[in-house]
Amino acid sequence: MDQPGDRDRIQSLERGFAVLNAFDEELPRPTLAELAAVTGLSRPAVRRILITLQHLGYVTSTGPRWSLTPRVLAIGQHYTAAHALIESAQPHLLALAERTGESASLAELDGGEVVYVARVPVRRIMTLTVSVGTRVPAHATSMGRVLLAWADPERVSAVLGSGPLARPTARTTVDPDALRAELARVREQGFSIVAGELEEGLISASAPVQDRSGRVVAALASSTSAGRSTAERLRTDVVPLLVETARAVGAELTL
Amino acid sequence: MDQPGDRDRIQSLERGFAVLNAFDEELPRPTLAELAAVTGLSRPAVRRILITLQHLGYVTSTGPRWSLTPRVLAIGQHYTAAHALIESAQPHLLALAERTGESASLAELDGGEVVYVARVPVRRIMTLTVSVGTRVPAHATSMGRVLLAWADPERVSAVLGSGPLARPTARTTVDPDALRAELARVREQGFSIVAGELEEGLISASAPVQDRSGRVVAALASSTSAGRSTAERLRTDVVPLLVETARAVGAELTL
Repeated sequence: MDQPGDRDRIQSLERGFAVLNAFDEELPRPTLAELAAVTGLSRPAVRRILITLQHLGYVTSTGPRWSLTPRVLAIGQHYTAAHALIESAQPHLLALAERTGESASLAELDGGEVVYVARVPVRRIMTLTVSVGTRVPAHATSMGRVLLAWADPERVSAVLGSGPLARPTARTTVDPDALRAELARVREQGFSIVAGELEEGLISASAPVQDRSGRVVAALASSTSAGRSTAERLRTDVVPLLVETARAVGAELTL
Repeated sequence: MDQPGDRDRIQSLERGFAVLNAFDEELPRPTLAELAAVTGLSRPAVRRILITLQHLGYVTSTGPRWSLTPRVLAIGQHYTAAHALIESAQPHLLALAERTGESASLAELDGGEVVYVARVPVRRIMTLTVSVGTRVPAHATSMGRVLLAWADPERVSAVLGSGPLARPTARTTVDPDALRAELARVREQGFSIVAGELEEGLISASAPVQDRSGRVVAALASSTSAGRSTAERLRTDVVPLLVETARAVGAELTL
């Protein structure tokens, strides 16, 4: 296959996703005009895209307002179904959440962000709403640091060198050299603990899930709040269980 | 707006979704040729779609094989973010799961199927894997019956009259008249209990979530197994809590 160029891309497909992704909490029920304004597309173009998405069952209209249908959740479900990891991890996440009394999550790296691919919530005391598909900056989370610690150097450089890093709290480490040193430490100790760098009061611990070839395919995390635990207690009480659970998840993966 | 016709739809957008939806558990890492065979599209057409989807970050290739990236989960996340219902329901689902010790789910109707839009899993003893985005036949589930019980008559007719209904177990009610009688009963009593009609040994109870105008916007369910409970115990122990929780979820909805 030749190196693909811009000419090979299908503009109408890109525009279709631009319209689909324009629906969010700011604009849950936009009008055609609002969608045109947000995407920068012409109204006739947005209209044809909406008609197509409506025919596919992804959007619906009530009067002049458009909204997504729950069918869009099926698109993500294709990812879950295609990844045996997520299904086989589910009982382990449940057991981890039951044994720790804390939320358990599984995440993968996507560019400079981690994406929650599975989650068992336990309590909801943090302001951060996390559901499957939620994305957070990798460098500010224990899951992201685990994934970056075992990632290709090129990938790490791309993430850390892509300009000023997001700083969700005053405690977020954003210095690339300090982060590189932290990644080396995570790799050496086999886990990561991050306190208050993604959200004040949020403490989480993560361990790598490795497939049989040793490749890190996901990060498993247990998260709690500063009111209920400390980084030290997470290290002594939760990390051994977390590492053991991550190994059990990885052992079930076929190559 | 004129009545849209086939001419208004964008074929390349439909084809793009056909390729994206071709990835599943049967074909988690297809080749270009496999995708062409499954979608009925030409290889050059599939190639351009893959290049576009790759540019958008939704697919990636390793050698000749293609796979979805976790970024596709973000598409469903737009639905979750745009629907205040799902976020406001989350703490209620958790509380319900904690008080019953059983999985709690929230679902919406999409055609003849219900789609899980939020879920708190508790134990995993059933063979059925359920995650957000999973779709099951509406008529065979307590959630679907609740949603159909309060749906427009046209919608009910479309679902029940669309030909032979799916029959996941020997106990599944598939006779349209029997189902209509059951929907009337559900509407009268204010909840639905279904045992063994979606999966042998699975028992679930559902109640409607109504917005302030009285419109039923979702079904709230608690599910267990025949080994742990009975339909009768669900009725006496769980249904009152379920109805109360569904009311609390609905009360938080703004119009």
